[in-house]
Amino acid sequence: MENKNYKKYKVEMQKVAHLRYASAVLQWDQETYMPVKGAGYRGQQIALLSSLSHQYFTSAKMERLLRALLEDESLSFIQKRNVKQSFHDFERLKKLPVSFVKKLSETVNASFHAWIAARKKNDFLIFEPLLSKIARLKIEEAEYIGYQDNRYDALLQEFDQSLDVATINKVFGDLQPALKSLVHNIYRKPIPADSFMRQHFSKEKQWEWGLELLRNMHFNFESGRQDLSEHPFTTNFSAEDVRVTTRINEQDLASMAWSCIHEGGHALYEQGLPAGDYGLPSGEYCSLSIHESQSRLWENCLGRSKPYWEFHFPKLQQIFPEQLRDIDTDEFYRAINKVQPSLIRTEADELTYHFHVMIRYELEKKIINNEITVKDIPAYWNEQYSQIIGVTPPDDLSGCLQDVHWSHGSFGYFATYSIGSLYAAQFFQKIGEATRGLDAQLVLGNSLPVWHWLRENIYAWGKIYNAEELCEKATGEKLNSRYFLDYAKKKYGEIYKL
Amino acid sequence: MENKNYKKYKVEMQKVAHLRYASAVLQWDQETYMPVKGAGYRGQQIALLSSLSHQYFTSAKMERLLRALLEDESLSFIQKRNVKQSFHDFERLKKLPVSFVKKLSETVNASFHAWIAARKKNDFLIFEPLLSKIARLKIEEAEYIGYQDNRYDALLQEFDQSLDVATINKVFGDLQPALKSLVHNIYRKPIPADSFMRQHFSKEKQWEWGLELLRNMHFNFESGRQDLSEHPFTTNFSAEDVRVTTRINEQDLASMAWSCIHEGGHALYEQGLPAGDYGLPSGEYCSLSIHESQSRLWENCLGRSKPYWEFHFPKLQQIFPEQLRDIDTDEFYRAINKVQPSLIRTEADELTYHFHVMIRYELEKKIINNEITVKDIPAYWNEQYSQIIGVTPPDDLSGCLQDVHWSHGSFGYFATYSIGSLYAAQFFQKIGEATRGLDAQLVLGNSLPVWHWLRENIYAWGKIYNAEELCEKATGEKLNSRYFLDYAKKKYGEIYKL
Repeated sequence: MENKNYKKYKVEMQKVAHLRYASAVLQWDQETYMPVKGAGYRGQQIALLSSLSHQYFTSAKMERLLRALLEDESLSFIQKRNVKQSFHDFERLKKLPVSFVKKLSETVNASFHAWIAARKKNDFLIFEPLLSKIARLKIEEAEYIGYQDNRYDALLQEFDQSLDVATINKVFGDLQPALKSLVHNIYRKPIPADSFMRQHFSKEKQWEWGLELLRNMHFNFESGRQDLSEHPFTTNFSAEDVRVTTRINEQDLASMAWSCIHEGGHALYEQGLPAGDYGLPSGEYCSLSIHESQSRLWENCLGRSKPYWEFHFPKLQQIFPEQLRDIDTDEFYRAINKVQPSLIRTEADELTYHFHVMIRYELEKKIINNEITVKDIPAYWNEQYSQIIGVTPPDDLSGCLQDVHWSHGSFGYFATYSIGSLYAAQFFQKIGEATRGLDAQLVLGNSLPVWHWLRENIYAWGKIYNAEELCEKATGEKLNSRYFLDYAKKKYGEIYKL
Repeated sequence: MENKNYKKYKVEMQKVAHLRYASAVLQWDQETYMPVKGAGYRGQQIALLSSLSHQYFTSAKMERLLRALLEDESLSFIQKRNVKQSFHDFERLKKLPVSFVKKLSETVNASFHAWIAARKKNDFLIFEPLLSKIARLKIEEAEYIGYQDNRYDALLQEFDQSLDVATINKVFGDLQPALKSLVHNIYRKPIPADSFMRQHFSKEKQWEWGLELLRNMHFNFESGRQDLSEHPFTTNFSAEDVRVTTRINEQDLASMAWSCIHEGGHALYEQGLPAGDYGLPSGEYCSLSIHESQSRLWENCLGRSKPYWEFHFPKLQQIFPEQLRDIDTDEFYRAINKVQPSLIRTEADELTYHFHVMIRYELEKKIINNEITVKDIPAYWNEQYSQIIGVTPPDDLSGCLQDVHWSHGSFGYFATYSIGSLYAAQFFQKIGEATRGLDAQLVLGNSLPVWHWLRENIYAWGKIYNAEELCEKATGEKLNSRYFLDYAKKKYGEIYKL
């Protein structure tokens, strides 16, 4: 039952969604098929759509509707939650003056080009003036938004409402020493051979195999598709039109395989959201941490597990018999779980990955709290990498210029990558408990029990609950890094015979 | 030099363009890559963008700017023309009440689905109620717009401002008897053999060949691309992002080849428009008749000419040696210019094509002037086909249900197909006069002189002139069907030894 105001609210929210998703189509096209010269006007088209969706969402009409509905006791539980969430988002956006939003968006635009230029010249100094400006604007933003304990909380909560510095400090504080000790034990053991992953694997065969991996995950090709792009991503224009992209490196089998499974995990989440709740919080993903938990669960808990490859590796061998004839599933499994210190976050193994994130988290927190300046970044970065990971970046390109996020104005984003991995392990533990013989099913290529659990416990709830609540509802407790540590110790203990 | 008001006008026009082109991206995606289930919300996304661009263009702000600029003597010639054209478009749209626009768009939406359903069941009666409603709405629209001599003029001018019933009646009146007599002379001659066109031609090779045809036309792949779709079309999101689509039938070489050249002709026009005049009339195509002249010029005047194939046929033979080894260029040339009565407009040869258009033109004119009703269409259609073309449709599918236009609410569109062909012949005659040894250039694969002439005489002018003015400026006289008749008599006289 929807009353008159609720119906109106839904119509307005759907209009905002139409504009947001139209913009997403233009961005998808930009990354996949747009001819080079299309970029000029495309940027302007996207900018107009973004500003219109902002304008619609923060309109006086929307405010009147939301305020009326907030008082409306006749709404159902889900309707109340939707209104509350929308009002929360509305208030957050309304706190930012229009002139500020405009200045930030202009700075971000200039900054992205500066980042590209800095990478070309391998020189952080080219990026530094604009990044300093962005950092000042993000501090300003945090002040507009407001916070209780730490200014950085205001930024973290753009990506996950239930995150704050206190929570993350606690979680990372538990995680870091345990992970360090695990990793150091691993480093004392022989390094698994993985050079067979870097032979020639033809583009066409990899592409077909990637589609097969997605089909096996139950990605629905009636409600989605895969294309190629330089950087893999997932986007959607409704729960019934979800697009993933992948990249193919003919000299490296890993490049496509795990990006395909990773984006597939994101996509299953989007396809699993209630399609009829289009435009409403109940039809949207919960938070970026939860989104990342979905991709990491498929990529790592399943996609780097032994049972998964007991099914898939023999098929892979059939596709690339010459390259993989002499490899057995065990060797393959060890190779894809090789742990080693590295410079680039996106290429890191699932253990040292967290160190990459922690370094960025601490760094951002210090910048936003004026403890270090943007100018200090390269020195701080290199010192942290050397101390925590044990490698020293030879230059900015493989150091502090590697990620695009800051140039997009995203401060507070990185933590969701690690938090997402921890949620993934916690969910995966529950899935194992809830499923009789999960490993045996996976060996048969059947990941349907995983999909069913996620659908029921994660997808179906959209943004009705925040990440903390959703986790508690799904697993019976709040985020707990123990699950990841247990998972990691067991898995790597076996692989490396610790 | 742009004064303050003109700058504001340009900004507003560009916003309207951003919305129109964003909608075009969504439609392009819908026809090329969108997964099936994406259709539901996509329709709503497109509808919102369309209504927003209408709203922006007919806003009070736009009206104030346009009225101020109309009085502004300081503007340059092109600026004045832009303002005049925009005001003309503004006034036309403003005449339609918002409630009417909404009703029409809803009816059109329902009507498209009814047309699909009617085609599935091969039964015009399923489409009839909605088509009747559309016809009534188009009559209403014509009354809102206003006209001098014939109500149908108001609808024709949506697609070409310089067209009216008097002009078309005169042109078609000259054309029909001459064409009839030419065609009847042809029918007395032996039919060229063309069964070799319907062997197996692999999709991959046809695709590569199509790209080669586009490259040879100087289609710029930095500002455009080709994809596959069920029905070939051209669209653009600026002059620097022009998309063509084609289809491939592995059993029929003709299906792709001429649709590719046809859409390529449309695309060269869009790519040739002044890119910096994005959103302004001076950056837009002149009229649909002129647009069609561009596609037909490449498809027919060049793409079905002997010199063109003296260059391209040996290359085609190399691509399909088994299929075409025993065919020579002359045989190929005769085969692709086979004239015969047929039921389907889009598959007709370039002579009988005009009869298909004339039948629709007369039919629409009668409907809009209440001389016949929608119910009468099948009987009228079949009678006209039998009388004018000499074939009687066995059913509605190959008769009055074949074209999508009416289901889109497009009345007044068909005439531009024939008028475009006549313009094409007139332009092509001038290009021949202006170019020393054009045929010899074409034999060498060099169509650059054609492109240069079109760029200078057509593309560069955007919508600064209407079609009639543009034709006069480019060729020294108004539209004259003599050029097409001379071209047709000479070409087919030689082919059929008349």
